[in-house]
Amino acid sequence: MTSSSDITITAFQRSPDGGRGLARDTRVRWALEEVGLRYDVRPLSFEAKKEPAHLAIHPFGLIPTFEQDDLAIFETGAIVLHLAERHEGLFPADAGGRARAISWMFAAVNTVEPPILELSAAVIFERDQPWAQDRLPIVKDRVRDRLRPLSDRLGDADWLDGDFSAGDLMMVSVLLRVRPPGLLDEFPNLAAYVARGEARPAYARAFADQLAQNTGAPA
Amino acid sequence: MTSSSDITITAFQRSPDGGRGLARDTRVRWALEEVGLRYDVRPLSFEAKKEPAHLAIHPFGLIPTFEQDDLAIFETGAIVLHLAERHEGLFPADAGGRARAISWMFAAVNTVEPPILELSAAVIFERDQPWAQDRLPIVKDRVRDRLRPLSDRLGDADWLDGDFSAGDLMMVSVLLRVRPPGLLDEFPNLAAYVARGEARPAYARAFADQLAQNTGAPA
Repeated sequence: MTSSSDITITAFQRSPDGGRGLARDTRVRWALEEVGLRYDVRPLSFEAKKEPAHLAIHPFGLIPTFEQDDLAIFETGAIVLHLAERHEGLFPADAGGRARAISWMFAAVNTVEPPILELSAAVIFERDQPWAQDRLPIVKDRVRDRLRPLSDRLGDADWLDGDFSAGDLMMVSVLLRVRPPGLLDEFPNLAAYVARGEARPAYARAFADQLAQNTGAPA
Repeated sequence: MTSSSDITITAFQRSPDGGRGLARDTRVRWALEEVGLRYDVRPLSFEAKKEPAHLAIHPFGLIPTFEQDDLAIFETGAIVLHLAERHEGLFPADAGGRARAISWMFAAVNTVEPPILELSAAVIFERDQPWAQDRLPIVKDRVRDRLRPLSDRLGDADWLDGDFSAGDLMMVSVLLRVRPPGLLDEFPNLAAYVARGEARPAYARAFADQLAQNTGAPA
């Protein structure tokens, strides 16, 4: 839900994915929706992201950022964790379950996502290189090396560790990026897991809001 | 410090780096040393990492893991965060500083490390591919695209945000991996930052312990 609020996040005015929900602001929007917080969005042009005003909040000139009162933080994982710690809905009540949910959050961004980012780079930035076609299978195998054990662990469970948590929010968001190249469908239980994430009302609201921004009139 | 303790971590019996401190158990050892906790190490062979007993603790068959009483967690970032939350020495006292330190932890593993992992893969696994030499400069530039804004932000400060924190521990650990290919020295303030990390007594103890394990007799 976007309306006047004391929380402001940043998102690209036009995401490179054209509103398919793969930009990282969708992850933060989803977390905000899960915990029921209103927020404002400050759309950022590709020029503005490298300007001092934005670099002061995000040192790498990326999105999203999160501002509330005098706090300004960056990195999707850190923002989702911040919300999960302070509001009900993203962490289990017990300390052990919470620590395990945080394990899954880091697994999403540091074990599963790196080869997925490499695949994106291969497909987008190295598309016209002479090695593009020969190298692609190698990079896809690197992604499969992460998806296979994840699929084994998930089995026929709905979520990674008991109820839906911030760990699932991050993992589903990361996995959404391997649906376009067809890798997700190689692991039917992961495809179903992602579909369960997308079916959550909070995700649907987050997706619709980022889509509206990407297809609406420029601010 | 390794001696009888209620904390057990896993590390590879022989790290692929031969004890240069680049394996991820060094990050957890360092954090344990910073907060002054004793721990035991369960060395893991390359065969054992894919066995059910280890996969039950680490779904991806990697190291390190952290066990204490009936808690078992995985992912370096999650373990360091767990320690930082419960013991003095890795997080600032104020909530805002703590949230910013967590931003830097995630920045280390999700913004700075992915292109570094890609560079490692290019150097190690794609060394003999026909594209190896032509592609390497492209991958190195991807790393520089992260190091440059990080260098700009650090400036002439000692640490990323006030006193040394878990954010610095993670960032220094990630940057250590770009010293061998020579990229770190292109940014003198980052090289000095990493050297400050290595000069900490807690790091020195962690490094010595992982080296002793890698060069000692097999368990």
